[in-house]
Amino acid sequence: MSTALDERDAKPAGQPIRRSGGREARRAMRAAPLADDIRPIRPGLEGGRYKPLGQDDLARIHEAVLTLLETVGFANAIPSCIEALTRVGASYDADGRIRFPRELVLATIKTAARNFTLYGQDPRHDMQVQGTRVHYGTAGAAVHLVDVERREYRESLLQDIYDAARLVEGLDNIHFFQRPMVPRDIPNPADMDFNTLYACVMGTSKHVGTSFTVRENVAPALEMLYAIAGGEENFRARPFVSNSNCFVVPPMKFAEDACGVLESCVEGGIPILLLSAGQAGATAPAAIAGAVVQAVAEVLAGLVYVNALKPGHPAIFGTWPFVSDLRTGAMSGGSAEQALLTAACAQMAQFYDLPGGSAAGMADSKLPDIQSGYEKGITNVMAGLSGLNLVYESAGMHASLLGFCLESLIIDNDMLGHCQRCVRGIEVTDAALSIDTIAEVCLNGPGHYLGNEQTLRLMQTEYFYPAIGDRFSPKEWNEKGKPDILQRAIVEKKRVLAERFPRHVPRQVDDRLRAKFANILLPRTGMGG
Amino acid sequence: MSTALDERDAKPAGQPIRRSGGREARRAMRAAPLADDIRPIRPGLEGGRYKPLGQDDLARIHEAVLTLLETVGFANAIPSCIEALTRVGASYDADGRIRFPRELVLATIKTAARNFTLYGQDPRHDMQVQGTRVHYGTAGAAVHLVDVERREYRESLLQDIYDAARLVEGLDNIHFFQRPMVPRDIPNPADMDFNTLYACVMGTSKHVGTSFTVRENVAPALEMLYAIAGGEENFRARPFVSNSNCFVVPPMKFAEDACGVLESCVEGGIPILLLSAGQAGATAPAAIAGAVVQAVAEVLAGLVYVNALKPGHPAIFGTWPFVSDLRTGAMSGGSAEQALLTAACAQMAQFYDLPGGSAAGMADSKLPDIQSGYEKGITNVMAGLSGLNLVYESAGMHASLLGFCLESLIIDNDMLGHCQRCVRGIEVTDAALSIDTIAEVCLNGPGHYLGNEQTLRLMQTEYFYPAIGDRFSPKEWNEKGKPDILQRAIVEKKRVLAERFPRHVPRQVDDRLRAKFANILLPRTGMGG
Repeated sequence: MSTALDERDAKPAGQPIRRSGGREARRAMRAAPLADDIRPIRPGLEGGRYKPLGQDDLARIHEAVLTLLETVGFANAIPSCIEALTRVGASYDADGRIRFPRELVLATIKTAARNFTLYGQDPRHDMQVQGTRVHYGTAGAAVHLVDVERREYRESLLQDIYDAARLVEGLDNIHFFQRPMVPRDIPNPADMDFNTLYACVMGTSKHVGTSFTVRENVAPALEMLYAIAGGEENFRARPFVSNSNCFVVPPMKFAEDACGVLESCVEGGIPILLLSAGQAGATAPAAIAGAVVQAVAEVLAGLVYVNALKPGHPAIFGTWPFVSDLRTGAMSGGSAEQALLTAACAQMAQFYDLPGGSAAGMADSKLPDIQSGYEKGITNVMAGLSGLNLVYESAGMHASLLGFCLESLIIDNDMLGHCQRCVRGIEVTDAALSIDTIAEVCLNGPGHYLGNEQTLRLMQTEYFYPAIGDRFSPKEWNEKGKPDILQRAIVEKKRVLAERFPRHVPRQVDDRLRAKFANILLPRTGMGG
Repeated sequence: MSTALDERDAKPAGQPIRRSGGREARRAMRAAPLADDIRPIRPGLEGGRYKPLGQDDLARIHEAVLTLLETVGFANAIPSCIEALTRVGASYDADGRIRFPRELVLATIKTAARNFTLYGQDPRHDMQVQGTRVHYGTAGAAVHLVDVERREYRESLLQDIYDAARLVEGLDNIHFFQRPMVPRDIPNPADMDFNTLYACVMGTSKHVGTSFTVRENVAPALEMLYAIAGGEENFRARPFVSNSNCFVVPPMKFAEDACGVLESCVEGGIPILLLSAGQAGATAPAAIAGAVVQAVAEVLAGLVYVNALKPGHPAIFGTWPFVSDLRTGAMSGGSAEQALLTAACAQMAQFYDLPGGSAAGMADSKLPDIQSGYEKGITNVMAGLSGLNLVYESAGMHASLLGFCLESLIIDNDMLGHCQRCVRGIEVTDAALSIDTIAEVCLNGPGHYLGNEQTLRLMQTEYFYPAIGDRFSPKEWNEKGKPDILQRAIVEKKRVLAERFPRHVPRQVDDRLRAKFANILLPRTGMGG
């Protein structure tokens, strides 16, 4: 992202208040890179200052959840699931439903894994998911790539997934990479699962999330991951891939294939994102509180399941209730109701002190336009302020999960920078209250704060600067030929995709993978040769 | 805004989950207009669930403010200001500064006007500004109109102000109209002030905010307002115009002309927006907390001033600290730091239980593009969630207050609808928790909630639907010729401006005004003939 920024540093933008006041000093400071601990934003900033639910609301939702699990339970459990759950105390009833006594649910909540780390291949990208620490990342299963230049939707391809991964590799405000698209050029599900994962882990050293269609597709994936990690133990010690697992078909039914996948992933050492994706008004209640209740109940059922298989296996509390436009039944990912649902889910995860993941940033808009901007901005900032540990779908997504856009990734990285700066919040210390600074400036000083010691000190540590966002004055904007943010993003995308071919997986490891797995379909030519 | 909506109701959009399930019933319900009290959003929804500052932070800021007012005080008071302030106990010191004993400030806070109403010409638009009730409106002094079709900035004209006012008249989610542009076609300040106000009050029956250059320009304005109100008493009983008054030149200096205006407005019965617009890092401290401290101190000084002139005169706590891009000194209205400043100011107003007004929605972006979308969405939703009573600049603004855009007004009305739905929050009642609904659907029902009684009941009262925002599926979007939101806004703007010529001020009253004031410059032809 250095191009856009450098250009502006070289010729400062905006409407200067005055041209004096230490600009050279400011520019010199700005040129030096910042140590991670004094950067204005970073992964894992603590949110939680926005609380859509009151304490009493949380308790009532919890109580409703326990009642539902006890009285309604889950249908469609596969035999191994029935075996695991009845072994720990669930009942398998005559109507074919598994029901969960509240003691079982409460005991599971108490002993489930918490405060764990989601690892990157590169330890710099490790994420501690706990408390109200906030991380933003991608996700999805879009079937289209949004081609901004042609203004059209085309089928998404394997290369697009790899390209998205390597873009994310360099976007500081996107902290993890869950596969955002499905490769429509690979019809065979086994090849699709394997190559999707391959494209993700080769494209980025950040934590990767992926899905599997059926249980049988997990084993070859594990073999690949163990090979990349340099052995099974290494992977199990630092699993850098998690399984996004839709184990539930809302309302309150197990998804048979996904449950098989879940069991294999637990066995193989892959953390599970327990993903309940009901849609309010369609597969979940239209009442927002009810949609939260159902999602929490569903994920807790999954949590009991995972812990029945392997106590303490890392699982993410993935309440992802979506919203329907009730006029049509279509999903509306960019809606205000979605923002509320997601923030409420963050609070429920905190109520249980479990690592929470939910979705924000899903625009209804088809293109990176003003609508997508406010839809993404509102949903993402509320997710962050609520202290959601893992904000999935936060970048690149359009058309309520049907289209993914590489240019949007680049623009959304700035937007997420804004969100993270908001999450970081306001420091109130004696120094920050600035009594002495104000008195000095007013009584003995120049009557302004430009060039003031405090200003110079805080300009890098307190202020976030967008990389591609435009702060030109109208005059400068005009003189520069009215730059368009989409055009800038297109240029930046092309620059990065021409240059960045991550090599965190050494070439010789890749050679061995290609020798072993004949079905690797991403050509070397698409990976920098 | 009915066009876009009707089109979509006629041919439902999106990705239907299933085509059955009571769509006809939903459409029939949707066709009936909603009573105001069950609309999903409305003016004055209560925010406050987002609190950027802790209780202790608030107390520390308050203490710093009292110290500053006592020890630093204000320079540049005009004689009548010195007279008024020293009369109530402020000191006028040898260094030419007015200082405010803490007892004076505390006593003023205690007795100042609160819980008052800002009136519209039409009582439907009255706003009770108190507690955490949220209202969104325009503001600004942009010198350019953003011409979306030509993709250029041109000087703003008197007709533009009138056009903006009549657009706002029909945009439900914009609750008041403070003049957003200055008429660059009127060089004479007296004519400019008078005609600006005329264009505003003729264009909308919502509450209007305006400015005056100098004290002498207030009297003719009052004469016009009294005439429109049908007499001075009527206006004083329901003042439908407030004065946006920059009485302070930050840091901590009175603005001489504005103070003269303030005194005339107080005398004439016009509520005052006490507007402190320091810019962090330039005319206010770069530390966010310090910028808040200075803004609060400045507005409290103004509050003492107003109450010294006339105890209990309605005044809005207008802490509007702005942000500098510290690399250049230019203002950055769309920044994350701006969102934090504004939300913190909302909390300070609540700390004093005074009606608070601050600014959000100021995009740095020059056009209604994705950047402006996220900048506006993030800042506006945080302002609302923080419970800011009056969110100024919330619609139409670009280029950090230098450009105003009529098409953005229309698009931002949807964005503000999202914000208001988020402010409304989540209802947690037994019915909303939906235990019975979920049990019924899972155990005895169809396994989904489409067409469910709850779904039908909540679809209008719980869900906000954008008027111009697009929720088409990619397929439908393609079939419809890839509609562009800017094009839709242009069409809608032209439709409204061709049709809507508000007549809340009867023609005969306007005739009398035109007979009395030869300097009315807005031609009848621009007002529908």
